[in-house]
Amino acid sequence: MQLYTYYRSTASYRVRIALALKGLDFTAVPINLLVPAGGANRQPEYLAINPQGRVPALRTNDGELLIQSPAIIEYLDERYPQPPLLSKDFVARAHERAVASIIGCDVHPLHNSSTQNLLRQWGHDETQLLEWIGHWISQGLGAVEQLIGDQGFCFGELPGLADAFLIPQVYAAERFKVSLDAYPRIQRVAALAAQHPAFVQAHPANQPDTP
Amino acid sequence: MQLYTYYRSTASYRVRIALALKGLDFTAVPINLLVPAGGANRQPEYLAINPQGRVPALRTNDGELLIQSPAIIEYLDERYPQPPLLSKDFVARAHERAVASIIGCDVHPLHNSSTQNLLRQWGHDETQLLEWIGHWISQGLGAVEQLIGDQGFCFGELPGLADAFLIPQVYAAERFKVSLDAYPRIQRVAALAAQHPAFVQAHPANQPDTP
Repeated sequence: MQLYTYYRSTASYRVRIALALKGLDFTAVPINLLVPAGGANRQPEYLAINPQGRVPALRTNDGELLIQSPAIIEYLDERYPQPPLLSKDFVARAHERAVASIIGCDVHPLHNSSTQNLLRQWGHDETQLLEWIGHWISQGLGAVEQLIGDQGFCFGELPGLADAFLIPQVYAAERFKVSLDAYPRIQRVAALAAQHPAFVQAHPANQPDTP
Repeated sequence: MQLYTYYRSTASYRVRIALALKGLDFTAVPINLLVPAGGANRQPEYLAINPQGRVPALRTNDGELLIQSPAIIEYLDERYPQPPLLSKDFVARAHERAVASIIGCDVHPLHNSSTQNLLRQWGHDETQLLEWIGHWISQGLGAVEQLIGDQGFCFGELPGLADAFLIPQVYAAERFKVSLDAYPRIQRVAALAAQHPAFVQAHPANQPDTP
């Protein structure tokens, strides 16, 4: 498999966690979002791979091109079911997916590079951007804190879908100086992930395109 | 089942489509997001149901409370598998979920009422808001147009997950005066949905809380 990825894209980071949890090998194809003359993601070559011009994209072992991290992770879990990223129980799966959706829908898109760039074009400065980013991260993590469990990873002793979304969001919170003090459960999950080989392997600090 | 819903919330509208496609009965519990003194969604009574204070939320027949429309729709498809909202093939499912995620992650959260309210607090006027909204809807629908098929609904003769996300987004595009001229495939799907009983039943014009 080939993963079109950018080291500190949290959506790429989620898919890297899922691949690592399942022990799946892949080749990283770095897509630099921050080239001054326009990111590699906006070039025709990459737009032919992903018409959205976003990362990640996954080329499967059968040569199929998949986009959108939630769709890619569900694909990986269906195609390579062991170890599972979701519980078997329908209601438990819904709770796990709800945490993923809070982060994937209501937090990250509000502060990713596209959104930050449009806010800059609209005249907002870096201080205002940090305020904007902090608003959405705090709202989302505040909800997640109430939904996850009291021990282990988000929903038990083993990491899964919710953790694959939460840990990259914690990384973004730290990057943008958003306090995690109000979220002891999230801090507990983050501390466990920091010691887990799959999460370490997937971390932005450990990628081929890490500066 | 009980669905906590608001007539023109596109996330509620998605779940209403999924319920209608499966022929599932439910009681609508209207949550008015636009009460002048603070939406019903921000009251303690509703925050106990959904700590995010967003709609929709679903109370299942077993009394379980589920939140986040992507998670609720996947639950419905797993718990009530007929008719299916996703193909059986893993890659096809990934393409269907990718369209849902483009809309659910990269379009709708950028223009929902929470985001509009924060932009207003930041001093942006209604003209600027329409520009902001149009930017994200056009970007997302432009990508979706390239990903869906040449006939029928998004991915074939029968409607499914991608359609349940796309049709509410088309409704939002019309509400916010975003042109659909560049998207003939999307227009075709919208025309089919306008004649389909499940989509008609789920439409914002036909809800108990429609003004």
